[in-house]
Amino acid sequence: MRAAGFAFTVHAREGDARAGTLSTPHGDVPTPAFMPVATYGAVRGLEAATLAAIGARIVLANTYHLHERPGEAVVARLGGLHGFTGWRGPWLTDSGGYQVTSLSDRAVVDESGVTFASARDGTRRKLTPEGVVAIQEALGPDIAMTLDECRPIGDPAESGARERAEQTLERTLRWAQRSRDARTRPDQALFGIVQGGPFPALRARSAAATAAIGFDGYAHGGLGLGEPPARRAELVAIANAALPEAAPRYLMGLGRPEDLLAGVAGGIDLFDCVLPTRNGRHGVLFTSEGVLRIKNARFRDDPAPLDPDCDCPTCAAHSRAYLRHLLQENEILGARLASIHNLRFYLALLEEARTAIEAGRFATFRRNFEVRIAS
Amino acid sequence: MRAAGFAFTVHAREGDARAGTLSTPHGDVPTPAFMPVATYGAVRGLEAATLAAIGARIVLANTYHLHERPGEAVVARLGGLHGFTGWRGPWLTDSGGYQVTSLSDRAVVDESGVTFASARDGTRRKLTPEGVVAIQEALGPDIAMTLDECRPIGDPAESGARERAEQTLERTLRWAQRSRDARTRPDQALFGIVQGGPFPALRARSAAATAAIGFDGYAHGGLGLGEPPARRAELVAIANAALPEAAPRYLMGLGRPEDLLAGVAGGIDLFDCVLPTRNGRHGVLFTSEGVLRIKNARFRDDPAPLDPDCDCPTCAAHSRAYLRHLLQENEILGARLASIHNLRFYLALLEEARTAIEAGRFATFRRNFEVRIAS
Repeated sequence: MRAAGFAFTVHAREGDARAGTLSTPHGDVPTPAFMPVATYGAVRGLEAATLAAIGARIVLANTYHLHERPGEAVVARLGGLHGFTGWRGPWLTDSGGYQVTSLSDRAVVDESGVTFASARDGTRRKLTPEGVVAIQEALGPDIAMTLDECRPIGDPAESGARERAEQTLERTLRWAQRSRDARTRPDQALFGIVQGGPFPALRARSAAATAAIGFDGYAHGGLGLGEPPARRAELVAIANAALPEAAPRYLMGLGRPEDLLAGVAGGIDLFDCVLPTRNGRHGVLFTSEGVLRIKNARFRDDPAPLDPDCDCPTCAAHSRAYLRHLLQENEILGARLASIHNLRFYLALLEEARTAIEAGRFATFRRNFEVRIAS
Repeated sequence: MRAAGFAFTVHAREGDARAGTLSTPHGDVPTPAFMPVATYGAVRGLEAATLAAIGARIVLANTYHLHERPGEAVVARLGGLHGFTGWRGPWLTDSGGYQVTSLSDRAVVDESGVTFASARDGTRRKLTPEGVVAIQEALGPDIAMTLDECRPIGDPAESGARERAEQTLERTLRWAQRSRDARTRPDQALFGIVQGGPFPALRARSAAATAAIGFDGYAHGGLGLGEPPARRAELVAIANAALPEAAPRYLMGLGRPEDLLAGVAGGIDLFDCVLPTRNGRHGVLFTSEGVLRIKNARFRDDPAPLDPDCDCPTCAAHSRAYLRHLLQENEILGARLASIHNLRFYLALLEEARTAIEAGRFATFRRNFEVRIAS
């Protein structure tokens, strides 16, 4: 199956890493790519023009949040996410399952879907696989995600962990089939989600069965929850081996810059994470020489830019001292300038990774990056 | 007296209204001009590049806030306000007197200056006329203001009002002389402040005596405190008649768009006000057809821009529905986009006023504006 106006091509490889292009009805995305997170249809403090200026090519919005406010009907009437927000390039929306489970302490999951208390008004609401497809078809992103079961599996050695992982995997598969059957928009891609917890064999089984249902792309779910990086790489690798080479692969919700490069090395094409914007607002800046905690007193008089190697508008015009001052005073300009810098760092990192893959020097690039930020 | 690199020329007049150019060491300001307020050295959510893009030519910062944090010594080490903030055009700073008096309920004014409890750490601090000049010389704006006594005069019919106004006027004059004597920077303009409360005769006396001391420009203080617009116009007119024609005149802290046009009609050259940014953050938008309260439910599905006549980046790319959504969700992008629009409205209003004065049709322009926003 393939959604209309949607294609994925790979033009360079190095080991499992790959450089490609994801084509969507609203433009092409060079991969590997990082997707800034626009929870309510806005990256904190950054309008579409700023996102474009720092190299964003695809943006992620949260289905659950937009379903609550302003509601998918409003977004649809304004022309979907593209018309509503002003970001006219490609959009991806999550399924809302993770948000509902993590935001509500009263979420109840059964075979039909997830029942939860609305964060807005406390009323009981329900997300079903079919409902989530319908909401996303109204929101109108280029790429929609299937509802998966988001259930903490815990340590693999824990009693019952494998059983929980297996149940989650099987339910996610049944929901994936229901999601695929429910779709009606020919111009919207739908991605399936691999589960299986920390168990390589289950990850492989989940990937093969999800691929058998057939989606435009595939995501790895339930990772970035504290598992060791080496274990995560193993889980991603074994699942990727069972997924079709020709489909894009998305590692959901991860992570630190080094996690992204590890994902790229394992053949991941798409990433999203709130880390650059959330950390930025708290004064934690990513730089070519590692993390910089800008609120530290030693930056009070520092006239240097955040990162002398950075080409972002924040570094071009503002000093560490000014950034520190703005964040100390909770000036919203501080959150904006820090988010611009951190997002550009993430976007540029994957641009550079792509160029390195094309030149066959990605392994060296990754090693050098890790040495630099560790020193 | 005249500060180095500082000049003011008037090239067109219509009645008392005038169009001119204020030259400063950091660039020219076409007048009449509106100064966006950057309390801590940042207009809420707008970096220097955005301010320039919407037509700002001079920006105002608050001496008291910057004195508290990060302190004028830090700002000076980073190259003054121009180096510290990235806004390399002209700056004006207030004297801090109004801020101290209005923010602290324990401010005590005597002949030496204003003693107050720091909002930062509660310690007792003092602003004196000489100290305020020194702080501003360290901050490095193109234009500094003298410390004036900010004392509520009350209704002119109230017992003791005239006496209070006279005392305030006389003390402000003594402080003005001390400020002038204390200045050491030849490249920084210093403006004196006219007081006199709601009494025309006192306003005239204050203006003449302040002019006799001799400053680079003059401001009207203690207005915009609820006095009727017609009374304010009278007070401004009588003071302006006693001020040198060749010096720029600044109406501090005012106000609504119609207040600005009234000021222009009375011969005012410079304005500042927090209204466009503060109202913007609260969803009160200024448009060519009057005020629009964007949080109102009727804008939920409205695809139109805030103001079809506006050339700002917010109106170019975003709908009323999106603005409403962002402000409802307290997304900081909402504050930024609303501030961009409201500031552009104020800046454009004075650009248009200037063009109208040059064409001899300012009175018509003002009348049409008032009819349009009232309808």
